[in-house]
Amino acid sequence: MNVYLIWLEWPEKCFRTSPEALAVLRGLVPKGSRIVRAKTEAGFLRELPKATHVVTWSFRKEWFAKAPKLRLLATPAAGRELVPTEGPKGVAIHFGGFHGEAMAESVLAMMLAWCRGVVWSERLGHWPKIALSERCYRLAGTKAVILGYGRIGRTIGARLEALGVEVKGIRRGNAGELGDAAKTADWLVCVLPSDTGTTDIVDAKLLKRLPKRCVIVNVGRGNAIDEVALADALKNGRIAGALLDVWKREPLPKDSPLGRDDVPNLLRMPHAAAFHMQYVADAFRELASEGLLK
Amino acid sequence: MNVYLIWLEWPEKCFRTSPEALAVLRGLVPKGSRIVRAKTEAGFLRELPKATHVVTWSFRKEWFAKAPKLRLLATPAAGRELVPTEGPKGVAIHFGGFHGEAMAESVLAMMLAWCRGVVWSERLGHWPKIALSERCYRLAGTKAVILGYGRIGRTIGARLEALGVEVKGIRRGNAGELGDAAKTADWLVCVLPSDTGTTDIVDAKLLKRLPKRCVIVNVGRGNAIDEVALADALKNGRIAGALLDVWKREPLPKDSPLGRDDVPNLLRMPHAAAFHMQYVADAFRELASEGLLK
Repeated sequence: MNVYLIWLEWPEKCFRTSPEALAVLRGLVPKGSRIVRAKTEAGFLRELPKATHVVTWSFRKEWFAKAPKLRLLATPAAGRELVPTEGPKGVAIHFGGFHGEAMAESVLAMMLAWCRGVVWSERLGHWPKIALSERCYRLAGTKAVILGYGRIGRTIGARLEALGVEVKGIRRGNAGELGDAAKTADWLVCVLPSDTGTTDIVDAKLLKRLPKRCVIVNVGRGNAIDEVALADALKNGRIAGALLDVWKREPLPKDSPLGRDDVPNLLRMPHAAAFHMQYVADAFRELASEGLLK
Repeated sequence: MNVYLIWLEWPEKCFRTSPEALAVLRGLVPKGSRIVRAKTEAGFLRELPKATHVVTWSFRKEWFAKAPKLRLLATPAAGRELVPTEGPKGVAIHFGGFHGEAMAESVLAMMLAWCRGVVWSERLGHWPKIALSERCYRLAGTKAVILGYGRIGRTIGARLEALGVEVKGIRRGNAGELGDAAKTADWLVCVLPSDTGTTDIVDAKLLKRLPKRCVIVNVGRGNAIDEVALADALKNGRIAGALLDVWKREPLPKDSPLGRDDVPNLLRMPHAAAFHMQYVADAFRELASEGLLK
């Protein structure tokens, strides 16, 4: 009998297991399986010896020894920070890859809210019509360079193209290609993970290559951006704006280079690009679609 | 010889003729034509007797008598308020129909900024992560009823469908169809003109039919909404929100039902849905594409 041990408790409501999400899981697993919801680490560890499948936000390497029946260790997260990337023989490890659609909507949300005046209408007070008339432009016809062109980056690219944006996807490591593409970018969209080689890819040198009209978007990880250099570029008007969901330190400290009140043309989001109330159910659906719930 | 008299002066920068827009027009008219830019009503009336083509924001019926050579009277506006809808024999009258693409981007901007958390991140201050996690949802999979399904409404519908929204377009006058569709609408998007029969179409009765999760969007004209009833519905949580670009009175008075500070879940835009810096050039391009600049 399969035992699905679900430990998805998290402060954010959309990242917690709900009765609705468990009902979705029930429809995806073989009949007669047990589904166990753990609410605490102690409860999780108590059930772990019986579990054949685990879905969790975090898992320590030493816990594998307590899980002799384990066949699947899955996390909804795309980031590799909280679950080991390798396990014992016979245990499949799975990181979520379903975030692209929601994240693409968030990237569009930030970009459109910026170029169609929503952000400015919120900030400039009552009836800022004249001010908006100089700040609004069309999304269609602009050029976006997407830095980090894996599954999530390509999903974002497809949505942007559907709205008439010219998209150039760049896999990390292609520094030369990036330097050239940067020169004509209206948007530089970062979708990089935090592992080796991504830190400060967006540095003072790259910022100098971008046109003054360029707006930076980051929904990958905060380490990709040299925050001192970006704050400087925004204050000097060297680029037109930054729409950031992720930061070097989170929660964003108020005294960090981009947390201060005096940084202009900055839209701050609290690492929320993947938020949506179907998140956990979608994580279960992805595991089923990849045959991992058997 | 054709004489193109362009009088497009307006407080909003994007609605004024620019050297760039006139250069676009130069490329669209027959060689040897004259292009005259008027900056005042007096200047416009002085040139009017020679004009074969006029592009203007406003024109009085009695001015036709002063324009014996006139073949085209065009306004970039879609609204019928400031230019006569009929003229003497031989004078084509043209209202702009090119706004749909920019307006569709604005509708998407408001809807995505709403459901992906951008509006809430702006409003809720520093690092509102927990609050956002309960307010964010996916745009894809929601259902939009578009009220007013002419050229602009259909363009908006196509863009929404491209992002996975289920769209139901309703031509005005189909009150029965609207009453049914309203019951399951996640979004009610109004794109109605201000002419006869559109006033207060969104009234207390229709608001009661909408699900509590429904959000109203208006980029048509403000007369379509009973503002007292909508303010009431927002305050009572009978619907989830309203994203409005147009108002019964503009500029929106601070003491009007929707201008007061105590109306919750309301995104206010200053009649800016069509704003973009290529606006006037696009108006010229549309006239050329319809053969009206000959």
